[in-house]
Amino acid sequence: MPLGGCGEIGRNMTVIETNDDVVVVDCGLMFPDEEMYGVDIVINDFSYVRERADKLRALLVTHGHEDHIGGIPYFVKEFARTPIVGTALSIALIKAKSREHKLGDVDFRTVVPGERVRFGSVEAEFIHVNHSVAGACALALRTPVGIVFHTGDFKFDQTPIDGRPADFARIARVGEEGVLCMLSDSTNAERPGHTLSERMVGEAFAAIFARAKGRIIVASFASNVPRIQQVIDQAERFGRKIAFLGRSLQNVVHFATELGHLRIPPGAAMKAEQLEELPPEQIVVMTTGSQGEPMSGLTRMSVRDHNRLRIVSGDTVVVSATPIPGNEKSVYRTINNLYKLGATVVHGTDGRSHVSGHASQEELLLMLNLVRPEFFVPIHGEYRMLVQHGKLAVRTGVEAENVFVAEDGDVLEFTHEYGDKVGKAYGGNVLVDGSGIGDVGEAVLRDRRALAGDGIVLVVVAIDAEEARVTAGPDVVARGVFYLPESDGVLEELRAELRASLDAISVEGMRDVGTVKEHLRDTLAKAIYSRTKRRPVVIPLVMEV
Amino acid sequence: MPLGGCGEIGRNMTVIETNDDVVVVDCGLMFPDEEMYGVDIVINDFSYVRERADKLRALLVTHGHEDHIGGIPYFVKEFARTPIVGTALSIALIKAKSREHKLGDVDFRTVVPGERVRFGSVEAEFIHVNHSVAGACALALRTPVGIVFHTGDFKFDQTPIDGRPADFARIARVGEEGVLCMLSDSTNAERPGHTLSERMVGEAFAAIFARAKGRIIVASFASNVPRIQQVIDQAERFGRKIAFLGRSLQNVVHFATELGHLRIPPGAAMKAEQLEELPPEQIVVMTTGSQGEPMSGLTRMSVRDHNRLRIVSGDTVVVSATPIPGNEKSVYRTINNLYKLGATVVHGTDGRSHVSGHASQEELLLMLNLVRPEFFVPIHGEYRMLVQHGKLAVRTGVEAENVFVAEDGDVLEFTHEYGDKVGKAYGGNVLVDGSGIGDVGEAVLRDRRALAGDGIVLVVVAIDAEEARVTAGPDVVARGVFYLPESDGVLEELRAELRASLDAISVEGMRDVGTVKEHLRDTLAKAIYSRTKRRPVVIPLVMEV
Repeated sequence: MPLGGCGEIGRNMTVIETNDDVVVVDCGLMFPDEEMYGVDIVINDFSYVRERADKLRALLVTHGHEDHIGGIPYFVKEFARTPIVGTALSIALIKAKSREHKLGDVDFRTVVPGERVRFGSVEAEFIHVNHSVAGACALALRTPVGIVFHTGDFKFDQTPIDGRPADFARIARVGEEGVLCMLSDSTNAERPGHTLSERMVGEAFAAIFARAKGRIIVASFASNVPRIQQVIDQAERFGRKIAFLGRSLQNVVHFATELGHLRIPPGAAMKAEQLEELPPEQIVVMTTGSQGEPMSGLTRMSVRDHNRLRIVSGDTVVVSATPIPGNEKSVYRTINNLYKLGATVVHGTDGRSHVSGHASQEELLLMLNLVRPEFFVPIHGEYRMLVQHGKLAVRTGVEAENVFVAEDGDVLEFTHEYGDKVGKAYGGNVLVDGSGIGDVGEAVLRDRRALAGDGIVLVVVAIDAEEARVTAGPDVVARGVFYLPESDGVLEELRAELRASLDAISVEGMRDVGTVKEHLRDTLAKAIYSRTKRRPVVIPLVMEV
Repeated sequence: MPLGGCGEIGRNMTVIETNDDVVVVDCGLMFPDEEMYGVDIVINDFSYVRERADKLRALLVTHGHEDHIGGIPYFVKEFARTPIVGTALSIALIKAKSREHKLGDVDFRTVVPGERVRFGSVEAEFIHVNHSVAGACALALRTPVGIVFHTGDFKFDQTPIDGRPADFARIARVGEEGVLCMLSDSTNAERPGHTLSERMVGEAFAAIFARAKGRIIVASFASNVPRIQQVIDQAERFGRKIAFLGRSLQNVVHFATELGHLRIPPGAAMKAEQLEELPPEQIVVMTTGSQGEPMSGLTRMSVRDHNRLRIVSGDTVVVSATPIPGNEKSVYRTINNLYKLGATVVHGTDGRSHVSGHASQEELLLMLNLVRPEFFVPIHGEYRMLVQHGKLAVRTGVEAENVFVAEDGDVLEFTHEYGDKVGKAYGGNVLVDGSGIGDVGEAVLRDRRALAGDGIVLVVVAIDAEEARVTAGPDVVARGVFYLPESDGVLEELRAELRASLDAISVEGMRDVGTVKEHLRDTLAKAIYSRTKRRPVVIPLVMEV
């Protein structure tokens, strides 16, 4: 059932299938790793859904984070008339994406937490949980063989900013009803204890605001509505006005305010243009770029490339996030650059200017004890996290053989009495590069890797095959191989070696393009390796005139 | 004075210069970051030393880690007769490198901790400190204007494995003598408290060994002699034999045993060939790869590609290291793969199977209070760490204006009375790729980046300029752009578009190679972008026949 999100962080997607119906839970994206050269984003392979398109009833969305909704535009392109169901903020965020992708009419359906919606033989109940975005829900899916409980991403925040802890009563009631199988968020399954309340961040912000003498700049995820609220609250308390920089952040502020998730007191916010008008001690700026993303607000500020804000000594910058694995280098590069500009930087969880949005071990145990599932499938995490989460489940009484540490694409089958892994759908990555979806495969990446490693060299020669002689060339072109000031000399040497090597070919050899090509390739590769110990991609081109 | 290691982790190197003499402290390498495509290693620019080659008296080595000795082979190639001075294990490790690089005679000089060596107007005193390799020293450099104290990399381990805490008495005595300037290790300057003793790892290992029922595999840095000793000790205690896999590890074990840094009881070690002969519960294996390095022992084991050892269910794998920033993804990939093979994995500092080799804040403060320098230069760290370390120095009484948060290449001048930043040497990266040192510059990297991003497309055409007509081509070759199964069709379409575009060129245009090239480049770039939204490198080649 889990097509993505098992064995990695990202591209979360689960397919729930009964005899007659298919509903999909979430359809996320993943950001490419460092080996996926040139790839923009990574989504799931939809083959399993495609083969069951006639049974497809709905796409249910637990919450509006990229790793849960980022694949939806691609999903919609293929399964256009499928209802997309979620809470108001999730739908608003998906709509914004749809506009970017210029999708036509989409069948969006907004639900409120607590609501039940039926799709064929499956009834979905949306249940409020806490997470680092508003409108996050777990799903109780009533199927003919029993309840499947999908936690989405969650934490149990006893003192949340919006005053609404997770709906314990409803979760407990579902647990009492009897749950066949639970799928649960494993992101923090290796962390002991309890994730801190979002409210702790407010206290940390208060201390930072009390200390700061100049401007305060806070970078966070655009979708982290509770975090935005806390910055607004502290700004009001300390007599500062707040400006939101960046389109994605402004979008979220707009939707979230309209939907009542965000309360901005009258006169508390200002436009970016007003930044020049106020003294530094009356200014708070929110921006994106907490992951050191190249084109984001904070990264631009850190290299003095932002059109609205120039970091100066006296500014306090709060990076209200922790680096996602793989982003450490870029995050710390940004922080170092901010220090160099004279800013005071607060970052990481040390100063409590950030808390996680995911449940730690004690909360995962509580969820297991509330839901008491017969079968358990840890999802949303790397393999090591799934293994840990499986061990936690066993500690709460789930039979060890009823825990399925699944990998992407594993097909699990459950009846009233038993559950088993019965097959494997293709659960691999689909790489999106430009407008191409899935057309960047292993071969293209292998080529890009080779090109990135040592560059490329071409030799082109025109041959009159009849007379068996060279009529033009050999010409040599290189990219990413030689140091420019020296390259003219080297290229001339290489041409001379190639000419000599062509002279050595027999008349018969000269009439065969394959032979000439092999000859050129060999000569060139050896000449470059002996000079540089490098092995660029070598391409011989022979034109017959 | 600091040429490298200020503003990054790695390629540590400091130049100490008096009127008549230059001594260099350390000469390390740095591993390339993800943007330095194809680069093998990064070393320092030696220009500053080169310009003072006649004054160069010695290269002093604090300890034998790659970030302190990795650049030495390149240094020796240029400054062949400079004495290289260090403790026995450091010199042994450098000698092993010299052999790999086939360097000729090098003037190695071995010192023991406590020894003083004079080079012109500079006298260097080697002082024992604790670190994650044996033979680590701080240096007290007596110059005509006062003492420069260089800590090297250090921690204060009150219960070290070799029974020898840092030489507090000698450090304090130097401090009493009066220190003009201290340069100190900033790696852990952001960490409060005290770094745990190496002995804690032994206790963690004991618990792991007591629990493990099958084989135990420990991955660590090859040079971490104290760590190796602890694995040997626990192996002996629990009746297991130990095998060392990998040449670098075997080298270190060999040197360290010869030099008395490592005690292997008779019969405790075994050859890799004997792994098959013993039952699993009597086996310990040490290997490298704690950073997920592609060709290392542990990484190969994790993908079942190791020729000596095949991970099976029941094996316990201990990753006795934390990921260096930038390596997180590969480390966790390795750990996930080990879990999938059924191994129990212990990793990170949580289980205390690893402690840092660098001083935390309390130890940095202690060092400052022992040495009581007039001027302070934090080294060995990213900028944010240097800033923190500077703040610590001020807390111990160093004047704020006497703290120099320097960047690579900053030239600091000190007299008896004052210190100042007086200039800037080139402190940039020198990239080593194959046999080329420094010949991979920004232009080459930019090319490789472009190639990695979207691949490359070439169009080649032969033209008879006199008759102003195409005699062969256009041919199109692409790498890293198109999905293979579709590429034949696409390339045929592109050729047709290019033919049509060539037909549209006037006779005059046809006679000008530049015009034809521009035409081909434009047509091709647009045709590809409209199909794929990708922007590969486009190279038009026109041959005149």
